[in-house]
This record gives sequence, structure tokens and C-alpha cells, in this order.
Amino acid sequence: MGATLSNVNAPKTRGVSPSTTLSTEELRKINAYWRACNYLAAGMIYLRDNPLLREPLKAEHVKNRLLGHWGSSTALSFSYVHLNRLINKYDLNTIFLAGPGHGAPGVLGPVYLEGTYSEIYPTKSEDKEGMCAFFKEFSFPGGIGSHCTPETPGSIHEGGELGYSVSHAFGAAFDNPDLLVAVVVGDGEAETGALATSWHSDKFLNPIRDGAVLPILNLNGYKINNPTLLARVSHEELDDLFKGYGWDPHFVEGDDVELMHQKMASTLEDCVLQIRGIQEEARASGKPSRARWPMIVLRTPKGWTGPKEVDGHKVEGSWRAHQVPLAGVRENPAHLKLLEDWLRSYRPEELFDESGRLISELRALAPTGTRRMSANPHANGGLLRKALRLPDFRDYAIQVEKTGQTAAENTRPLGRFLRDIMRQNPSNFRVFGPDENTSNKLDAIYEVSKKLWLADYLPEDADGGELSPDGRVLEMLSEHTLEGWFEGYLLTGRHGFFSTYEAFVHVIDSMFNMHAKWLASSAELTWRAPVSSLNLLITSTVWRQDHNGFTHQDPGFLDLVVNKSPDVCRIYLPPDVNTLLSVANHCLKSTGYINVIVSDKQKHLQYMTMDEAITHCTKGVSIWQKASNDEGSEPDVVMACAGDIPTKEALAAVVLLREHFPNLKIRFVNVVDLYRLVPSTEHPHGLSDRDFDSLFTKDKPIIFNFHGYPWLIHRLTYRRTNHKNLHVRGYKEKGNINTPLDLAIQNQIDRFSLAIDVIDRVPVLQAAGAHAKEILRNMQINCQNYAYEHGVDKPEVDQWTWPG
Amino acid sequence: MGATLSNVNAPKTRGVSPSTTLSTEELRKINAYWRACNYLAAGMIYLRDNPLLREPLKAEHVKNRLLGHWGSSTALSFSYVHLNRLINKYDLNTIFLAGPGHGAPGVLGPVYLEGTYSEIYPTKSEDKEGMCAFFKEFSFPGGIGSHCTPETPGSIHEGGELGYSVSHAFGAAFDNPDLLVAVVVGDGEAETGALATSWHSDKFLNPIRDGAVLPILNLNGYKINNPTLLARVSHEELDDLFKGYGWDPHFVEGDDVELMHQKMASTLEDCVLQIRGIQEEARASGKPSRARWPMIVLRTPKGWTGPKEVDGHKVEGSWRAHQVPLAGVRENPAHLKLLEDWLRSYRPEELFDESGRLISELRALAPTGTRRMSANPHANGGLLRKALRLPDFRDYAIQVEKTGQTAAENTRPLGRFLRDIMRQNPSNFRVFGPDENTSNKLDAIYEVSKKLWLADYLPEDADGGELSPDGRVLEMLSEHTLEGWFEGYLLTGRHGFFSTYEAFVHVIDSMFNMHAKWLASSAELTWRAPVSSLNLLITSTVWRQDHNGFTHQDPGFLDLVVNKSPDVCRIYLPPDVNTLLSVANHCLKSTGYINVIVSDKQKHLQYMTMDEAITHCTKGVSIWQKASNDEGSEPDVVMACAGDIPTKEALAAVVLLREHFPNLKIRFVNVVDLYRLVPSTEHPHGLSDRDFDSLFTKDKPIIFNFHGYPWLIHRLTYRRTNHKNLHVRGYKEKGNINTPLDLAIQNQIDRFSLAIDVIDRVPVLQAAGAHAKEILRNMQINCQNYAYEHGVDKPEVDQWTWPG
Repeated sequence: MGATLSNVNAPKTRGVSPSTTLSTEELRKINAYWRACNYLAAGMIYLRDNPLLREPLKAEHVKNRLLGHWGSSTALSFSYVHLNRLINKYDLNTIFLAGPGHGAPGVLGPVYLEGTYSEIYPTKSEDKEGMCAFFKEFSFPGGIGSHCTPETPGSIHEGGELGYSVSHAFGAAFDNPDLLVAVVVGDGEAETGALATSWHSDKFLNPIRDGAVLPILNLNGYKINNPTLLARVSHEELDDLFKGYGWDPHFVEGDDVELMHQKMASTLEDCVLQIRGIQEEARASGKPSRARWPMIVLRTPKGWTGPKEVDGHKVEGSWRAHQVPLAGVRENPAHLKLLEDWLRSYRPEELFDESGRLISELRALAPTGTRRMSANPHANGGLLRKALRLPDFRDYAIQVEKTGQTAAENTRPLGRFLRDIMRQNPSNFRVFGPDENTSNKLDAIYEVSKKLWLADYLPEDADGGELSPDGRVLEMLSEHTLEGWFEGYLLTGRHGFFSTYEAFVHVIDSMFNMHAKWLASSAELTWRAPVSSLNLLITSTVWRQDHNGFTHQDPGFLDLVVNKSPDVCRIYLPPDVNTLLSVANHCLKSTGYINVIVSDKQKHLQYMTMDEAITHCTKGVSIWQKASNDEGSEPDVVMACAGDIPTKEALAAVVLLREHFPNLKIRFVNVVDLYRLVPSTEHPHGLSDRDFDSLFTKDKPIIFNFHGYPWLIHRLTYRRTNHKNLHVRGYKEKGNINTPLDLAIQNQIDRFSLAIDVIDRVPVLQAAGAHAKEILRNMQINCQNYAYEHGVDKPEVDQWTWPG
Repeated sequence: MGATLSNVNAPKTRGVSPSTTLSTEELRKINAYWRACNYLAAGMIYLRDNPLLREPLKAEHVKNRLLGHWGSSTALSFSYVHLNRLINKYDLNTIFLAGPGHGAPGVLGPVYLEGTYSEIYPTKSEDKEGMCAFFKEFSFPGGIGSHCTPETPGSIHEGGELGYSVSHAFGAAFDNPDLLVAVVVGDGEAETGALATSWHSDKFLNPIRDGAVLPILNLNGYKINNPTLLARVSHEELDDLFKGYGWDPHFVEGDDVELMHQKMASTLEDCVLQIRGIQEEARASGKPSRARWPMIVLRTPKGWTGPKEVDGHKVEGSWRAHQVPLAGVRENPAHLKLLEDWLRSYRPEELFDESGRLISELRALAPTGTRRMSANPHANGGLLRKALRLPDFRDYAIQVEKTGQTAAENTRPLGRFLRDIMRQNPSNFRVFGPDENTSNKLDAIYEVSKKLWLADYLPEDADGGELSPDGRVLEMLSEHTLEGWFEGYLLTGRHGFFSTYEAFVHVIDSMFNMHAKWLASSAELTWRAPVSSLNLLITSTVWRQDHNGFTHQDPGFLDLVVNKSPDVCRIYLPPDVNTLLSVANHCLKSTGYINVIVSDKQKHLQYMTMDEAITHCTKGVSIWQKASNDEGSEPDVVMACAGDIPTKEALAAVVLLREHFPNLKIRFVNVVDLYRLVPSTEHPHGLSDRDFDSLFTKDKPIIFNFHGYPWLIHRLTYRRTNHKNLHVRGYKEKGNINTPLDLAIQNQIDRFSLAIDVIDRVPVLQAAGAHAKEILRNMQINCQNYAYEHGVDKPEVDQWTWPG
């Protein structure tokens, strides 16, 4: 297997020698700017008054509760100011992602200094009063947090939970050929699984049409209390590791401030030129290939420039610098003195003018306008977002002559819809999936865009491999990386679609949580323009894991989703092809949500014409008249359902019940939009109690056949009038290798169990029902025996007539 | 930073030259044994009859539904048979973990051939009938799955969800100095985050007291439909990557069967000798240090030895070999013929005797007794498990003179209890945490056992670093790796304790799901001896994330836990030090569960003496008489709570209510064992309806102040008589930077909101309550204003009197 990396052996374009990259004057200025950043970072942790130290520091100037994290701040601002130099020199279009935990002080400082903060938050003006307000609000009740939260201008990556900085960075770089995404990675963060595999993202960056990602791995050496692994292995191992990941590592290591400025200036410039070289070569040749991109290993002391030693303990360059290096400052005069000395070591009087504004000599170092990383519109992607061009989803409808008579793979027409969306939006729409787009029957998309592949090719790839260096379908067996890419892509103003295996979407539970929180917070900020929704198709669902067994059966993701803000979460369970198309169309147009769509990929019965599907999806929940025989009157029982297989079994149960009890009045209700079940006071999609009661009655038994764990339906409906008569069936952790029907039977969501449930709950049937129940139980056993004998379900199980 | 790796440059102990490691006779035999494995693997995918091909293959011999995965099977059995050779040669004590997805056929084959399968499952005897039953049950309804499920003898790693093989392997190797854990890693699996960071586990293996892990990365090149990343990078990159991870990679690559046998035999032997060399050197010196352990990159064609081409498409060595290489065999005579040719290519008539048993010449190749990897007791760890020696937890109690008057850090005494458990069980108990044991106030443990650290040391580590190459506290910023180690440690018969950050336990949601399923399935197998429970302390909880903000606030893990089998899940919310000790003691003694304990690490009020705590925890839920004034009669309202902060706020609400309404009869109920809320028909810990009603009344208002999302309590209690009067408060996604009380107020779990809730719900208060409500609201606003002004809560908020 030969290396196909471009630039592996290319001579590095070293513009200038490390020791003279910066002139004395440049060095003095850049260091002064950095001192200003560091002063602000320390100030926001400690001060509530006397922000410019115009008077001696007193205890009452210090916050009551000292919060915030100093440890990673100065290396972040160090990287930031050096990027600023090159943005100006080369007119770079750059955004900045801060991976290290709690690193906001190192970012907020430069963001404030370049004026963006004051533009967005006028009370945090560039003067003494503004600086004081800026200090006070940091990690203060009602203020802002110690991460790069949505409130931070220029941020698309909060980093509250660690591990996603590199994948977010790549998502931002895709299809932004002009963009340089600088991402500082923490060495704590680098120990997480998500981060460890995301280094492989370099194999998915097309140097012609994509921008570049420049990771700066900051080895500050420590986590909360421990050394980090990567800071305690040999240089050789580190070098091997990143070469092994496909990068070209550059090392900037030390603690001497002047030397480090020179090294960083020179190395960063080398990297920028190396990136330009790769891009120019690829773009000139027109042939995209995988490149060995540069990355920087920046080894600095934790809490660099902070107190060296406190109470006899080493602080700078130690885990003791992680959070607040000097505690008890209000009570301990010696610590207060140390704090004052530390703050004064940055010589704020040289940095800020009389009014408290950064002196103009230093202001000139920052880029201006949208070249400021804090004001780059890519980091407020809604500003750049263009509405998706959508073909008419009705054109992908399948014909449904008679309901419940024909079967089709529910996701296949969606694949054709996605294909044409990709065609109409060739450079701002991507499809993500962990090696499952073909398995998930979405492979029509490959007719327009292949799977991106920049690693080596083999001859057999030509036979159905569907690989291309130009593809925009991204597949890697890492849900973390895909989700991170997708989020980065959306947050920079683009669109996409992610399909994944239901059981294994739990791999990204925490990423879902974080993105939901990001969206909920962003929605509060008027200056953040809405970004496209994150559309997540959950497929290969529990009910068709009859062959993969118990580990592949887990519909519990929805239980997590409903915990998050109702303002950002949506859940849909379309039962067939046309409802899925209608739902997908709706989701793809939306902004600001996480849309979770549950739909299996296998063949399923089809129920609705496109017109019916649109009406049904618009309502979100409705009575299926054709399956009901209550004709507008009060029914004896409501048979409700949500999800493809549960719908099929519920309908089959209705057929069975009609055979046995022709006079039984059954109302059949199908739920597509799960939040319709919730009171309207709790979710914007919730039905009013009146509407809910009119569908589900106030006092009749309801049998609800649900796709997921049954308790979720109770959790959503416990306030409803008729909740006491609600009986829910769903997955209850019963399953191994089964046929589809047997798996349904094991969990009692099958037609026979449902029909028996009805008999047990409708008073008029209870006397007459004993015989019917016996017949139904025998049918059920008969089906199971057939399955255990033949390994498949009886063929007639999927051949039955629409009720009525 | 200098390399401290031992054996980095040590000459490799090459026993014999690659081409002659195996004699012609040995080669013939080992290949014959492998052929038998592969025949079985194919047989179990296809055959339901004619298992030995004694007659021509007919359609009716083939299963109706072809399921299973051929692709990764043959490389697994290849590794297995070569390990067998060395187990015999060196009397190795070895277990085998199969990482590649759906690889069970490659493991079940050798397990059956060495007799273990038939010993455990007598109907799968070593004869024609047994083989037929063995074939039929595979991926067949009511049978076994295509992963190494608990039903697979010798398995401690199912691999249904990918990514955890290496961390499981290390968990098994810890404190088993004599054990060699061979783990085959799939190249699909290797793309996951969990796997990518778990390679760093090599930095946590002490060559003196731990066993060894030998990873065999199988590059078969493909996932379901895609090439794998690691199979499509250069040899140099692969070599760099694994060297960078700290391993010594050996390469075995090819498809020529005879050459590959020689290469594998020679390389595997080198690795075994290299491992022995590392161990002998370290053990002789008595100085543990980090070693550069060997690992193997085994590059083989996917579906090796299967059909080369089908219908003009390459199959062997392609993604088309992933699942069933020949489909439609029953309908397509040409495919049937190909299948027969393929099966006969293994020449079963040479491998099995007349009765259908493996011929004795080949039987002799397998190890015997417990040296068989399928019968090694380490893979049925309950057999080796020794009960934990537990000091008396009462000795760690704190004095509680007056309830609700003093504060203590709830987890600190637990740290001392864990310390002494570690002292009494020095080699079979470990404590796990992602760099948070100190932060979580469990650092007393370091008095007995430090944090394991085998990477480089710096001088300042001596000052409170708490690092040691002999430590048994494992800390790495990867919840995945920790959880995997812990599971592997437990499944091989040991004990442990894992504490982690509440919001970020979601990182391992899916690992929790998988382990819960493993335990539920294992419990059905009488031959599997029970293993220790997985004890998981969730701390740094939502209510003290007032300073870390919104992203750190997520108590939703419990919503996931309750979806899993009631036979294996337990949830405890002890409100103070003594209840936490009592709960922890109970959990550490138990087997077969996942015990989730929720307890914050900060200072909290203390309520119970140890005797009271024991009584309370034994009941799981009880009335706190001292906080109640209903004196055995029917109360006006039930104030219920679960969790430390919610308990404190509920008690403070009672104080407020008593001030305003001295005659109001309040019953105070605290819940420690959350499953007590569930009906006894649903969970072994569930209260009967009668007991529930006697605590919570049949018709009085219940205000329930809950630690987590409020809906969970409804989900657990919706069937209870008095559910309609249940009003639950909990976290509802409201929070940013707040003081503790303000965060409570934002989510309405605070004392004022609760008191107002009571006033609103107790009919007799509603007229008189308006004035009280106004006072309470003013107090609430007053507290918030103080917090926004001072950045801390009013001091008196935590100084109040126990009610009554």
C-alpha cells in the first residue's frame, strides 16, 4: 500500500529563521498585546472593581466567590494574538475554536480588545466602566460562563464537554475553501475518545474545495489534578503519533516568553504557508488528494505568566494553576499582595489609556471588521446561511392505491429526495452516516455525490465502491466525528442530514445534549442568526433487530431528547414512505431545532397517498378514518400507535378484532409528531387538552402501541384527562434472535397481544371475549412455533387486508 | 522529555526464522484445524441439515433466512488457532476477546472444536446431530446471535457495539500477572472514538503485577460497505501511529495461506517471548516501568478463504464478504453449487470422523481443561471472584448531634471507607475516575493507593502529585476507557468503584446500555457465576453546577437507567454522609447489578445518625418523623424528596410552612432507593401499592422535590393510586451561572417555590395563603437580588433550624 499523501516530502516553506521572524519592535508589541489579554483574563477571574489598578488593590475589589480557570487561558490568547498577526499579514479568513476546558478567559480577553465584545454588548464598553462590567459578569451569577458559550462572539464551539473541537473545526472547514479554522486542542481533551479518533479527519479534507484546519495541541501538561498523557511521553512518540495520524507536526516548546514568541511566529507562519502551498498545488492541478497538513504541538507551562509559587507550592507549570491560582485573596493579605504583584506584572498602565481603552499602538495589531476572528461571520453561520433549494418532495411519493396492501422500503424514496437536494445544493449540503447509507437504503444519493474518500484506492473500488475525492457524503465508523463535523457544518451556515443506527445513536447522547443546550442558549441571543436544524434520521430500528439480537435493540434515545428544551427538540415517527418524505421536507426547511426522525429502512406496508400524508403530518396526529369504524361517534376503544412496525401491528390487531367483534367501535389514531401528546403549555407542538380529549376521548380505553420504551408515552401524557385509561405497549428489553413477529410478540406489541389488550379493557367484550382470546393466543403460539421451526415468519403475516 | 520506555531498543527475541517456525507437519495440522473452524463458521451461517456434507448439498439443507457475518470470521479463528499452539507450547494462561463486529462464527467454531461448547450445551454434542443443532441455532430464532454474547463460552466481550475491546482487555489483565489477554481489534471498530483512545491503555499496565494484553489489529480492509481508514494508509503511517501510541507493532500481511501460517506462528511467538522478556526483566528488577509492548497488525482479505468472486463481483477481499457472501442460495442453483464448492473446499471428510467428531490428530492441537480459552475461568470471572473484605462502614460515620444543623462534604468519608477497602483488598479492588477523585473528595484513597502513573515523572510530582507506578487508582480523561477497564476487571472476577461527573456520564450511556444487557443475559445462564456489581457514583451533580453553567447541568442518566432490565439496575440517592456510606456498603457487597449512586461532593447539611441512616436505607423510603408533624394521622400534604440538595430545600420549605401555618400537618418522606417508587410487580425493589399508599396517602397532595428531571418521577409512579395529586419539581433546563440557591429557584426546586406549591395545593391554605405567598415571593426575590449583587448566596441560606 503506497503513500498517497501529497507534500509528505515537500520542503517546508520556511520564510524566515525562527529567531528573527519578529523584529524587536514587533516582538515588543505582540507581547504587549498578549500581556493585555492576560491581564484581562486574570482580571475577569478576580476583580469586581478597580479594573485598571489605578489604586492599590484592596480586598473589596476582589469578587466574593472566585471562579474561573486560569490554567489554559494564556496559551489560548498566545495562539490568538499570533494568529492575528498572520491574519493581517496574509489577509486570512480565520475562525478560532478553543478546545481546552474552561478556557474562556483566554478568548474573551482578545475578543474584548478587538472591540467586538463592546459592539455586541454595549455595556461592556472599551473604557474603565465597561472593563469593570466585563470583569464582573465573568463566572458571576446572571453573567457568563467559563467556556466559550454561545454568548462568546466568534465561538462555534463551547467546549463545556471536552472532545469535539477538532471535529467541529473540520465541519467548519468543509466547503469553505477560503477559510482557515484554527483550533486549539487541550491535552486533557486529547485523552477523550471523541478527540482521539477525530485526528483522522485529515483524511476527509479536500484541499481544492475545502478550507484548512490548523490544530494547535496545547500541552500545558495537566488536567484538574493530574498530568496529561501526551505531555508525559517522549518527543519521539508524539512525533510518531501525529505522523501516524497523517499530520505534519511542528513543535513550539518552552517558557521563555521572547523565545516563544519568535518560535510561534515563525512556526505559525510556516504552517500558514505550508497550507497555502498544499492548496495552491491541489487547486492548480485540479486533482484533489489527501495532504499531510501541518499541525502545531505547543508546549507551554499551565498557567503561564501566572504566580510561580504560592505557599511553597509550584503553581505555574503545575495542576495547581488549573483553576484559581491564588485562593482566599480577600482573607489573606499575603495572597492579596501576590495577586496585586501578579496583575501589575502585566503593567496595565502601559497597555490601556486614561479612559481604559487599549492604546492605539496595540489596537492596530488586531484585524478589523469581519477579519477579526470574533466577528467573522462564519462563526455566526446563520448570517451566511442560504435557504436550501428543495425539489418538490411530492415528486418522490410512491403510489398507494390501496392502503396497507403493498410494501416498500421506507427510506429509499427519501434517498432520492436527498440525492436531488444534493444536486441543487452542491456545495452547502452534506449527508453523514457511519458506513450505513447503503445499508440504510439512502444510496440513491451516490448518483450525485459519492462517499468522500481521499485515502488510498484499490482497483476493486471501481466496482460499486461509490468512492470519490469529490464526494460530499461523509462516512466513518465514528458517530462522534460525524456528529462533530455535522454540527460544525451547520454552525457555519450550511445544511445536512445524518442517518444512524438507533441502538448506537447513544454513542452521541452527550453530543446531542450539548448541541441542544447550545441551540437553546443561542436562541436567546438576538445577534446570533438562526442556523439550520440538525436533522437526525434514526434507522435500523429496534423492531428489525430480530437478527442482530439484544445489543442492537435500544429505542431509548427519545427518552433523552424529551429532557431537553422544548424550544429546540422535535421528534417524528412517520409510518411509511410518503409521511417520511413530508416530515423530511419539513425538517430540512427548518432552523434552530434538532429534528429526530425515526424510520426503519426495511420493507414496510404503505398506508397513505401523498395528499393524505401531508394532511396527516400537518396535523401531527390524526384519526385514520379508513381503519376506524366509530364514524364520528364515541368509540368503544381507541387504538393508537406511533412508528412503522407498531402501526402495522396495531392495524393488524384491528383486523383481528373486526373479525371477532364486528360491532366493536374502534377509533384508530396514528401519531407522527410525538410532541403533540404533550400539553400545549409544555411544548409548542402540544395539543390543547380539548383537542387531545376529542381524539383520545375522556374515558374510553386507549391501547397505545409505541415504537420505543412504553413509559415515554406515560411521561408525555400523564396530565391528560384520560391518562388513567391509557395502556401502552412498547419495547421492554425482551429480545434475542427472533423473527420480526416473534420480537413483537416477546414485547407484546404484536397484533395478538394488542387485540387481547382490547378485549381485556373494553367492558362489553370481557364476557364474550374469552373464546376470542383463546383463539388469538393459539394464533400467536402458532406463529411463534412456525418461526422457531422455519427461521422466518409465516408469509401470510405480511399479507392481510386493510380493516373495514 | 526523555523516553522512559523499557524495551524500546531491546533486540527482539526471534526464536526461529519466519519461514520455518512450523514444520511441514505442524503447518499441515494447524491449517487443517483452521479449515475445520472455517467450515463450521460457514456451516453455521448456511446449514440446517446435512452438516457434514455426507450427501450432495440441496436447497432444503440451507436455512430459510441467511444471517450472520462471514467477513471477520476467518481471521478470528486464524488468530485463535495460532494462540492455541502457543498456549500448549508455553503453557500460557490466555483469554480471547473478539473485537470485530459480528465475528461470532470465527470464535464459536474453535470453541466447539475444543469441546467446551458441548460440555456447556450438551445438545450441541460433538457429533453429527450436535453439529447440526449447533449450526441451526446460530442466528436462528430462539438461538444465539452473531456476536460473542454471554452465551459464548470464554467471552467477556460481546462486541455488539464496537469500540470497547481493548479497554475490556486491559481491565482483564490488571492484577492478573499470569494472564495473557489476546484481543483481536477490527479495523472498523478502530475508527470509533472509544477504541482510538484506548490504545493509550498501554501507559497503565504495570509489568510486575499486571498481565499482558496482546492486540491483534485485523485489517480486513472493509466495514459494511466501505473501506476502513487504517487499511488505506501507508505502512509507514500505520507503523508511526502505533509507535506513537507506545506500542511495538509487528506486521503479518498477506493472503497466501501457508506463508501466512508461518508468519503468524513466528510473529505471535516473537510477541509472546517479547512479553515474557518485559515481564521477567521488570519482575527481576522489582522496578515497574512503562514498557513498549508488542502488538500485531494482521492484514488479511475480508472473508478470507470464502468465495473469490460471485456474479462477476469480487467477494473475498471486499466489503461484499461482510455478511452472507452468497445470497439466494435456496433459489439460485448456481449459488447453491458455489456454496457447496466453497464448503467442500475445506474437505470436511478429512477433518471429522464418522460420528462427526473432530479427528483425534486435530483434537490434540487444542489446549485442554481450563487452558482452553473457552474454558478459562477468567472469562467466567464469577468463578474466581472472592467476596470483598469490607471494614465496618459504621466506623466512617460522622456524628450528627442535631439533624440539619451541621454541614459536611458527603463524599469525603466515603473516600476513607474506600481507602480501607483498598487496604484490605490490595490486589482485587480498583477505583476509577476521570481525573476527579480529588475533585470528588475521595482523595483519602491515595493514603493507601496512589494514582497509577507509568509515563514520565517530573520533580514537582513529589509535591502532592499522588502518582505511583504501583497505584491502583486509575485516572484518565476518557470515561470510555475507564468504563471499559472497569467492566473488564469485574467480568474477570474483581471489584471496583467508579466516580464520575454527572453531566458527562452520558459519554458512556451506550456502554452502560451494553453492560446492562450483558448482565441481564448472563443472569439467564446458570453456568455463568455472578460477578461483582458495577458501582457508579455520579457526583459533581447538576445542583452544584451553578458556577460551571448550563453545559454541566444534566441529571438525565437516570432516565436511561430505568429503561434497562429491572433485574440488573439499582438507583440510590442518599442525602447525606451516613446514608451514602450505608448505600455504598450495600452496593459493594452485591453481585450482578449496576448500582447508580447519586451524591454531590460539596458540603451539605447532615440529617441522620448512622443508626437512622441504616434504618432509612434499609427501607429505601421512609417518613422522617422529626421533620413531620402529622403524628401518625393523615397529613394535609406530603413533602417528598430524593437527592441531597432537593432534600435540603424541601426541609427548608417545611420550616417556612411551619412558620406561616403552624397547624398544617406535613408528612416528610425521603426516598433513597428510587425503585421503591415503582410497583412491586415491575421491580424487585418496588413497594406494594398498599405500602406506597400508606406513605404517600391515597388522596392528599404530594409535592415531590427531585434531583433529576421531574418527569422521571411521573414515569415511575403513574400507576399509583395517588398519582393524580403528585406534583414534581426537578431540573428543567434552566440555568447558567447562578448561585446554588438561584439555580434552585430557576428550576423551582427551592424552598420558596415548594412552600408556594404546597399553599397552592392544600385546599385549606388557599384562602389564607395569599399573604404568605407574597412574603415567600419577596424572600425569593430578595435572595436572588443578593446573589446578583454579591455573587454568593446569603450566608443565612444554609443556616436554619430543623423543622419542629
